[in-house]
Amino acid sequence: MTEQALQSLLSQITPLDGNAMDAAKKRQAQLAKPPGSLGQLEQISIRLAGITGNVHNSMEKRRICVLAADNGVVDEGVSSTPQSVTLSQSINMTLHKTGMSCLAQFFGDEVMVTDVGIAVDCPVTAVRNRKVRYSTANLYLEPAMTREDVLQAMEAGFELADLAKQDGIEAVGVGEMGIGNTTTSSAVLCALTGLPVELLTGRGGGLTDRAFDKKKHVISHALQLHQPKQDDVLDILSKVGGLDICAMTGVFLGCAKNRIPVVVDGFISIVAALCAARLCPTAKDYFFLSHVSEEPGYKAAQQALNLPAYLNLQMRLGEGSGCPIAFQVLRAACAVMNTMATFEEASINDDYLEELRAMEKNK
Amino acid sequence: MTEQALQSLLSQITPLDGNAMDAAKKRQAQLAKPPGSLGQLEQISIRLAGITGNVHNSMEKRRICVLAADNGVVDEGVSSTPQSVTLSQSINMTLHKTGMSCLAQFFGDEVMVTDVGIAVDCPVTAVRNRKVRYSTANLYLEPAMTREDVLQAMEAGFELADLAKQDGIEAVGVGEMGIGNTTTSSAVLCALTGLPVELLTGRGGGLTDRAFDKKKHVISHALQLHQPKQDDVLDILSKVGGLDICAMTGVFLGCAKNRIPVVVDGFISIVAALCAARLCPTAKDYFFLSHVSEEPGYKAAQQALNLPAYLNLQMRLGEGSGCPIAFQVLRAACAVMNTMATFEEASINDDYLEELRAMEKNK
Repeated sequence: MTEQALQSLLSQITPLDGNAMDAAKKRQAQLAKPPGSLGQLEQISIRLAGITGNVHNSMEKRRICVLAADNGVVDEGVSSTPQSVTLSQSINMTLHKTGMSCLAQFFGDEVMVTDVGIAVDCPVTAVRNRKVRYSTANLYLEPAMTREDVLQAMEAGFELADLAKQDGIEAVGVGEMGIGNTTTSSAVLCALTGLPVELLTGRGGGLTDRAFDKKKHVISHALQLHQPKQDDVLDILSKVGGLDICAMTGVFLGCAKNRIPVVVDGFISIVAALCAARLCPTAKDYFFLSHVSEEPGYKAAQQALNLPAYLNLQMRLGEGSGCPIAFQVLRAACAVMNTMATFEEASINDDYLEELRAMEKNK
Repeated sequence: MTEQALQSLLSQITPLDGNAMDAAKKRQAQLAKPPGSLGQLEQISIRLAGITGNVHNSMEKRRICVLAADNGVVDEGVSSTPQSVTLSQSINMTLHKTGMSCLAQFFGDEVMVTDVGIAVDCPVTAVRNRKVRYSTANLYLEPAMTREDVLQAMEAGFELADLAKQDGIEAVGVGEMGIGNTTTSSAVLCALTGLPVELLTGRGGGLTDRAFDKKKHVISHALQLHQPKQDDVLDILSKVGGLDICAMTGVFLGCAKNRIPVVVDGFISIVAALCAARLCPTAKDYFFLSHVSEEPGYKAAQQALNLPAYLNLQMRLGEGSGCPIAFQVLRAACAVMNTMATFEEASINDDYLEELRAMEKNK
């Protein structure tokens, strides 16, 4: 994909449907409850109306798109987990063995895993092959990838959103698998926001004090070395990003283009969502945040996006593991809009009581 | 129920099963994820093991117990909603028309509504009749009820927990319907904690500034007039409580007695849960908080209970409306424990890859 092609796709992302949102607000005001008392369930239903153009929606076809890629920076010892786990967990996800995927199976969500940069060939076809390259380069020493790599990974993400549209998917969740990707995510977030490395970097899967210090040093050094341009997302991603983050950015933008609600789940996912929102601010109206991740950078990214997160479960597994529960929150919002009684329907008059008594007698 | 009978029931509430919890912790440590990375989903599964004595649990039979009662204090103009709504919404709950009950129907949760003090006779049998009295007295002028009334309402709550046990219910949620019950809840919470009325009182369904000032005055005046004893829960409930709160306290204690996990939902519910925990501190190990209510007193009660809440949805409807989503969080915790692979099961060796390739060929 060329930069021109990306610009053309971004121009196809349009604002929410104001008429549908007005109709949804009007309906919410008629439902038998104090105004606003269902909080985010009301706000979600109104935003969903804006996305689909319909007041009544369902979230029964759901898919979690997982982007898998390796990161050259693991050479610096920034992760407590060996690189081979990117491949093995990507395969395990397709077998519903991992945290995210066992939850997805339990709740009836599809899982689609795509390899955009695992360091080795993936030996099974259940993992989709859209490999851009075998891992990124080590960002401590050189730019992680080329600008062309970034665009190619993003294209794979747009493709996933188009596929979801074709398949009639009503909600997409965005997860990842890539050892070392909290390092790239913190680096990208620092570059996007200008906030200090110390504030946006955490222990990922669980680093020792020494490895944690190393991780922060690696990020600081890379930012110093490459000087990514704060207002150029592609520049940032190519210098200190990861192929998973690039592709996830593409999924977020592609879902907005296709008017599909999309769940942002966890730290890497929210950094990609912020990249997407920087490329196209309108896109963020299509995003729904699942849970507040324990990674310290999450809240800074959330603040930059200015969107509420629905769950507080102290999770930090990644994978998209919060999506299955977040989908249930979206389903709940739909159920309220679709089945709750209006004030008129909820009023109890004498005729109604007569009817009820008759019903009970005939039981 | 006599006070002696209550004491006897409280003595039947026993601590969580330490052996089962140790086994659950051991299993969590074997699952293929960084230790602790599933946060509260891990903690929930460990606590559920302590409750049931089994490492593997399911939450497929769920019931929301709603306690309905009127409050004499509405005479003072502390609510924006007419008293008749207690009856009408209690009936509507049994028809799955309200916020909580439409969600319960959608997610497959049973709803059981019990009248412990609605101001009039309920004309339908779908609402269980355990009426203690027709509404409480106006606590602005006199004690809300007698100590005997408190015990009788609590007994109705214990009975609901026993019924849930008989019916094989695996998780109970506790909701309410009672116009004026944010006033009684704030009053009870002030008496329990000694914290100021200003801090623990909110606008309930949505009061004007003037009515809000009145509400705070009514609570302050009642606390001054009746001088409830901070260390005597029954005294507090009889003087400034409501029959719904008393019965909910009984459900919480009864669930602990019967070793059933029980969801605390919303402001009135958490005040009852705190009453239960004051009567028997061991009981709180059986409690799970759904969402952080928008009512200002919620966080004070949460702090006193020292339990995490899983959802942040800015809800303030009451009824038990957060239970259906919270139940899905509990189900997710069970699914992780029951179906996620261990490190051993997740390791990818050559034999395993061979097997996978063969599987794919035979597709």
